[in-house]
Amino acid sequence: MSSSLPPLLAPLLSSAAMRTVCDDEVYLQHMLDFEHALARAEAAVGIIPASAVVSIAKACHAESFDRAALAEAAVQAGNLAIPLVKMLTAKVATLDPSAARYVHWGATSQDVIDTATMLGLRAALNALIADLDRAIAGFARLAIRHRETAVVARTWLQHALPMPFGLKLAEYAAALHRSRERLKRLRRETLALQFGGAAGTLAALGDNGLKVAEQLAQELLLPLPDAPWHTHRDRIADVASALAILTGTCGKIARDVSLMMQTDVAEAFEPADEGRGGSSTMPHKRNPVAAARVLAAATMAPNLAATIMAAQVQDHERSAGPWHAEWPTLPTLQLVTSGALEAIAEIAEGLEVDPERMRANLDMTQGLVMAEAVSMALAEKVGKSEAHHIVEAASRRAIETRRHLHEVLAEDTRVTTHIDADTLKGLFDPMAYQGVAQTLIDRLLASLASE
Amino acid sequence: MSSSLPPLLAPLLSSAAMRTVCDDEVYLQHMLDFEHALARAEAAVGIIPASAVVSIAKACHAESFDRAALAEAAVQAGNLAIPLVKMLTAKVATLDPSAARYVHWGATSQDVIDTATMLGLRAALNALIADLDRAIAGFARLAIRHRETAVVARTWLQHALPMPFGLKLAEYAAALHRSRERLKRLRRETLALQFGGAAGTLAALGDNGLKVAEQLAQELLLPLPDAPWHTHRDRIADVASALAILTGTCGKIARDVSLMMQTDVAEAFEPADEGRGGSSTMPHKRNPVAAARVLAAATMAPNLAATIMAAQVQDHERSAGPWHAEWPTLPTLQLVTSGALEAIAEIAEGLEVDPERMRANLDMTQGLVMAEAVSMALAEKVGKSEAHHIVEAASRRAIETRRHLHEVLAEDTRVTTHIDADTLKGLFDPMAYQGVAQTLIDRLLASLASE
Amino acid sequence: MSSSLPPLLAPLLSSAAMRTVCDDEVYLQHMLDFEHALARAEAAVGIIPASAVVSIAKACHAESFDRAALAEAAVQAGNLAIPLVKMLTAKVATLDPSAARYVHWGATSQDVIDTATMLGLRAALNALIADLDRAIAGFARLAIRHRETAVVARTWLQHALPMPFGLKLAEYAAALHRSRERLKRLRRETLALQFGGAAGTLAALGDNGLKVAEQLAQELLLPLPDAPWHTHRDRIADVASALAILTGTCGKIARDVSLMMQTDVAEAFEPADEGRGGSSTMPHKRNPVAAARVLAAATMAPNLAATIMAAQVQDHERSAGPWHAEWPTLPTLQLVTSGALEAIAEIAEGLEVDPERMRANLDMTQGLVMAEAVSMALAEKVGKSEAHHIVEAASRRAIETRRHLHEVLAEDTRVTTHIDADTLKGLFDPMAYQGVAQTLIDRLLASLASE
Amino acid sequence: MSSSLPPLLAPLLSSAAMRTVCDDEVYLQHMLDFEHALARAEAAVGIIPASAVVSIAKACHAESFDRAALAEAAVQAGNLAIPLVKMLTAKVATLDPSAARYVHWGATSQDVIDTATMLGLRAALNALIADLDRAIAGFARLAIRHRETAVVARTWLQHALPMPFGLKLAEYAAALHRSRERLKRLRRETLALQFGGAAGTLAALGDNGLKVAEQLAQELLLPLPDAPWHTHRDRIADVASALAILTGTCGKIARDVSLMMQTDVAEAFEPADEGRGGSSTMPHKRNPVAAARVLAAATMAPNLAATIMAAQVQDHERSAGPWHAEWPTLPTLQLVTSGALEAIAEIAEGLEVDPERMRANLDMTQGLVMAEAVSMALAEKVGKSEAHHIVEAASRRAIETRRHLHEVLAEDTRVTTHIDADTLKGLFDPMAYQGVAQTLIDRLLASLASE
Repeated sequence: MSSSLPPLLAPLLSSAAMRTVCDDEVYLQHMLDFEHALARAEAAVGIIPASAVVSIAKACHAESFDRAALAEAAVQAGNLAIPLVKMLTAKVATLDPSAARYVHWGATSQDVIDTATMLGLRAALNALIADLDRAIAGFARLAIRHRETAVVARTWLQHALPMPFGLKLAEYAAALHRSRERLKRLRRETLALQFGGAAGTLAALGDNGLKVAEQLAQELLLPLPDAPWHTHRDRIADVASALAILTGTCGKIARDVSLMMQTDVAEAFEPADEGRGGSSTMPHKRNPVAAARVLAAATMAPNLAATIMAAQVQDHERSAGPWHAEWPTLPTLQLVTSGALEAIAEIAEGLEVDPERMRANLDMTQGLVMAEAVSMALAEKVGKSEAHHIVEAASRRAIETRRHLHEVLAEDTRVTTHIDADTLKGLFDPMAYQGVAQTLIDRLLASLASE
Repeated sequence: MSSSLPPLLAPLLSSAAMRTVCDDEVYLQHMLDFEHALARAEAAVGIIPASAVVSIAKACHAESFDRAALAEAAVQAGNLAIPLVKMLTAKVATLDPSAARYVHWGATSQDVIDTATMLGLRAALNALIADLDRAIAGFARLAIRHRETAVVARTWLQHALPMPFGLKLAEYAAALHRSRERLKRLRRETLALQFGGAAGTLAALGDNGLKVAEQLAQELLLPLPDAPWHTHRDRIADVASALAILTGTCGKIARDVSLMMQTDVAEAFEPADEGRGGSSTMPHKRNPVAAARVLAAATMAPNLAATIMAAQVQDHERSAGPWHAEWPTLPTLQLVTSGALEAIAEIAEGLEVDPERMRANLDMTQGLVMAEAVSMALAEKVGKSEAHHIVEAASRRAIETRRHLHEVLAEDTRVTTHIDADTLKGLFDPMAYQGVAQTLIDRLLASLASE
Repeated sequence: MSSSLPPLLAPLLSSAAMRTVCDDEVYLQHMLDFEHALARAEAAVGIIPASAVVSIAKACHAESFDRAALAEAAVQAGNLAIPLVKMLTAKVATLDPSAARYVHWGATSQDVIDTATMLGLRAALNALIADLDRAIAGFARLAIRHRETAVVARTWLQHALPMPFGLKLAEYAAALHRSRERLKRLRRETLALQFGGAAGTLAALGDNGLKVAEQLAQELLLPLPDAPWHTHRDRIADVASALAILTGTCGKIARDVSLMMQTDVAEAFEPADEGRGGSSTMPHKRNPVAAARVLAAATMAPNLAATIMAAQVQDHERSAGPWHAEWPTLPTLQLVTSGALEAIAEIAEGLEVDPERMRANLDMTQGLVMAEAVSMALAEKVGKSEAHHIVEAASRRAIETRRHLHEVLAEDTRVTTHIDADTLKGLFDPMAYQGVAQTLIDRLLASLASE
Repeated sequence: MSSSLPPLLAPLLSSAAMRTVCDDEVYLQHMLDFEHALARAEAAVGIIPASAVVSIAKACHAESFDRAALAEAAVQAGNLAIPLVKMLTAKVATLDPSAARYVHWGATSQDVIDTATMLGLRAALNALIADLDRAIAGFARLAIRHRETAVVARTWLQHALPMPFGLKLAEYAAALHRSRERLKRLRRETLALQFGGAAGTLAALGDNGLKVAEQLAQELLLPLPDAPWHTHRDRIADVASALAILTGTCGKIARDVSLMMQTDVAEAFEPADEGRGGSSTMPHKRNPVAAARVLAAATMAPNLAATIMAAQVQDHERSAGPWHAEWPTLPTLQLVTSGALEAIAEIAEGLEVDPERMRANLDMTQGLVMAEAVSMALAEKVGKSEAHHIVEAASRRAIETRRHLHEVLAEDTRVTTHIDADTLKGLFDPMAYQGVAQTLIDRLLASLASE
């Protein structure tokens, strides 16, 4: 397959489904689908003879085109549509000379290219939504399974407070769901046929331009926009942003996973297929290979989206340069987004969790992560700042003397005056201090069903 | 005012309304609004005494805080919320020592900062939507006025075909309207309260966390999300993308205006206020100053949005670095977007159009821009490729002999056999070859009313 | 060929030479060149038997490797080096089982990949410097030819003052020369061998690590750095920046060319090969196809460089994600830079200039572009602000009355008192008001010889 | 102070020295320094009367200008230079009406603005080089102190092999030194006077343009370029890239520090000033506040540099938009770079290292990180792949049985046949397996003296 990733790197950085979407032959077929559908639409409206459609249809098969010749011809022409239409016309002429004149009738190069882009984006959104379904379902299952598994919440990479691991997982599912909703809305509202002729007026079709456009939109199952949008690229930029945002969400999850997989932390792990993440010289390592695929994509995607947004500044009715910048950039963005999401789906479906290690890590600071629990309990008695002061001092003492905070506090009469021994002990149970986390998990899981 | 643009450049690059939104004191007030609303919400739920609210409310006035001291303290604390809460607590303590302990009760720094960001974004969206209303109305008026004004469509910066200038203007209005719809949807669906406490579980509030959150959302008139979203920044990235896309649309319009203002083209001009666009040494120039403001923003905005998207990769429950990167970047993006839009609104409300020059430029190529009109008319008689061939040859001859294409074609019997003299002449009337442009204008203008 | 541009777009957006550099097989060969050179170096130092080198050398031919299998294996391994070394070891084993154990001895995956990247960058710099030589020589020739050709300087896209077109061309040459010097310095100083073993200590080679490194650097003709630089990517970022800056310079030139090619300006044109820039429906157009190729690259390159710079934040001794982001991004940057430069070289070697049209355009404002010339001459008599005032008023009058500025000034006694009629007329000769432009051209041309 | 960071965030994100450099008043003074120096240069060449210089000098004090009025006037003028020259002329006129006409003589707005930018960049480079000196010296000292402190090298965030911590620190110093050399080269070679007049020909100065330019360059101690470089912005882009690359290097170091500070790792810590990194609710935390400042900058800098590179595409002799985009972007980049570097310098001068914890962490995997040491030693006896196989199997057994790798290997006759017990034990001493790390440290430290 031939796409905008080098074949050596494509499997690492993209999903197979998206490589198909972005394959050169598929892209060419999308251009030919436009030409074929245009002929059908124009025949339906009575602008070209129905007989011409047969030969045009026969010629519109991408595999019969010499792609290398097309690519070379594009250098002089400035785009692929001009040589493609020439080749297609020649092919049709060999089948039916009288049909050849009706090829590409009334259309302009940008109509072909932009509509092919839209057909590609539709296929891309479909592929991504399918993988989002997998990833969301996977994290939802994990969230339910681990809704009572205690893990330390880390802020600034420091141990903070306990939280149920299921909350973290439910947040992953919900964030991915928000992206799924974005993609579905784009598929429904933002994709659009491009059909305007050289100046966006459909002048070459006289009064019939809009009739043909309506028919063409139906043929291709693409929404008909109010007017051609040639140099107004906000639709494209909208999709590009949504892909980058999805990749960003994948990146956030992958960062967490890679941190949890640290030898020093070892709380959760990517699924370990045969050979995955092995090192040639260090047999014991378990490299976050899937996370790395995601984080690579998350490093690239914002800048790929920025290119698409920068390319919005297009002059007049057809731009020389910015439009061209979209062509390799948009597929690269589609590909790396697909690779990130595929890796996240694999994680969602196979994450290995070590609740015991999570619990052990929670105890690593000898009770200090429960300081707030104690502080808040104490605050009800002595006020927030006094409680904060007592617990802060006790924490320092615990650190200095390398003792457990529970021990230190149990000796402090300012504490024991207000809190009895059993209550104090109970304050150090992580899942006794999880606030409304269970309700939040329920709310997040419920949100996944929304449309 | 103090924002993320240097004061010397702020008026050039931003709107006054947005400078107010992004002003340091306003930002601080948004943080204090959170603290005040939190106190009210917690009193309503019965977590803190109602009496505490009075003193907290009294202390929550940004102008009484030493901003320079806050800024310095943030270096050690790592954010502004920590020193702000300290200062606020001290202020409340001077009013009512017993109330001081209830300041910021159960909240974490990120709750304050993110909610303040959301309040700022809401104000920003309001300001932008107001200017969008102006710009859209302005271009819609211009589109109606110039719906029959012929201008040459330019593709690749080359004269292509005639089009009504009104179509171009209606496209501007419609593209801006699509951005308006994006911003309204974000204001309605994407803005959200941030309130989760240190680990996102609201643990410090026991069972009452969600009740307080609901109350707090109402106090601030912000939507209540399903759960805190601390390190899931897709909402922020969604807004940032929409701002950059809007700026891109402004950039497209500004590029067109700057090209039309060229001395060599001179078809349309930014409004000329006293002194605008003058040159110190070239008294005759009319610089596209408003367009330059827009194009500067359009150069910056994609990369500012990319920073926000890159900052989505945040670790665990509070990030060290990416979150901080949002703080100066988001306001800069808001500001330059506002500046771009303000300049576009001025253009929309005051664009000076020279229809005569437009018509004269249409004739510059001695009829060549009407070649397609002739070619399409001729194609109905002799087929597309033969017609293309005849007109292409005639066009070359017209260029070589420096004659009008009309003259050359009028001598060609391959043409005159099929098209009589009057019809041929009529084919050179620009607005006779505008396809369905008038319908497209109607459709675009109708779209502006949609919500 | 298989690179990080889709084959359909690669010829449009890159040079053939760079496509060879970035081809998957060539990249693989660079990896194998490392393995082969490593074996030779280690045999030279006496760490592995000389006999092993023969079989390793025989196996190090990229065309014999199954690239699709490698690409798939990289998904599990996280990089290409791990499966490549496995395959290579197996191939060597079939030739000489005893040699197989010495494959990749003491090296780590990153040594292979980074050194292959460096070999690729060296080839890329060579290819770019060759095209820079062409482009610089071309513009230098044009600068000499047009050193007295008057053209209007345009500021803010407005006519400003006359200048010799040769100055503009000499500036192009000099700016490209500055990039050539950057690339040469990088080739000389910044490229570097990567060889550190798993932890960057070359521990697996005992005391011989540095000796092997020295020998290996000689084998590959790459500079030996002071130490391995695994996660310090400033060298890579330095090259990426230089490529983006070069592309930016190409973009500046292409912007100018596309503006000069406007139908409304028509002062200079890209070379017109058969079929270049033609339009399928508008036979008279002359599209700036080469400029578009450049401007596409200039839209992409800054963000590709930004990805490389963002990927500098790599953790500890081997990074999971940012490093991977470099792999497809760096070749894309190399490719689009090469395409931009190739197009600029073609322009430099074939630009068609229309001095008559340049002169006609200079007169378009009826003498207003000579206003400063007159103003400065007058200023010597009446002071700058008075002169400015007189000429500004005259300019307004000239515009209002649609007369030539010369005429208006010739009637103004405040002028004629100080400047006689012949002198006044002479002030309207464009090349009489070119300051030190000829000296500047000489200085710029002289700079091209510097190293 | 007023810069392109909001005052509330400026101390967190920038150094005090750089805030001075980027302060609006300082920027204005740089513009006035140009005007003053221009007058002196022109008087020296005899173009304007020496008497005029006195009054111009007196008026060129930034603090006497109404900056708010200037900022507002720039909206209409499109830049700050036009209103500044007007105000300056008026001020001079009040001192000496005859001198007023000589203000800004022969210069254009871009001359003032670009030269002021260059003066600002020189001050910025000086400030950065001073902090680089501190940071490099600090890490060099630490490298020497910890040249025998064993720490685990982490690849893919997994424990890999031991390395001396001093090697890591020496790499930090050397990477920063490479940036220092970049900045020094830019200061020496890339900064340049801008002086060209409206069209870059210095036409208004007749034959004296170059003489004035030479004098002016001397006055301002800026290198004289071969010609004005108005719309060739590669010099600016070169500096911007170097700043972003420096920030990237700081980001790499900060990432490492933040990971080492993790509660789960706890090997090294930012200096703990009073109150630094404290949490309002978690008294025991030690937040990587300095690292966060750096990582924020490293998220922003690549995209700020990308804006500057995108802004290279400037049209003809003065650009409308891209040039303006540089104005707020370049100072923001200078500021965040300074903040990143300042935080790194603080880390370099105060890093707290816990060698015991480093050693304890090395043992965390029960000898697995020494697997390569054993494997390489064994490979000398049984070949690389057999040794790899034995150690891999032993490692798996060690993991499964939760025993130390040493124990497992000591029971394996395939090992004990070749390696005696003492030797085997010695293979588990981390610093016995550091290859040429000590030599590499020496080489890196020696490189710091190079220029």
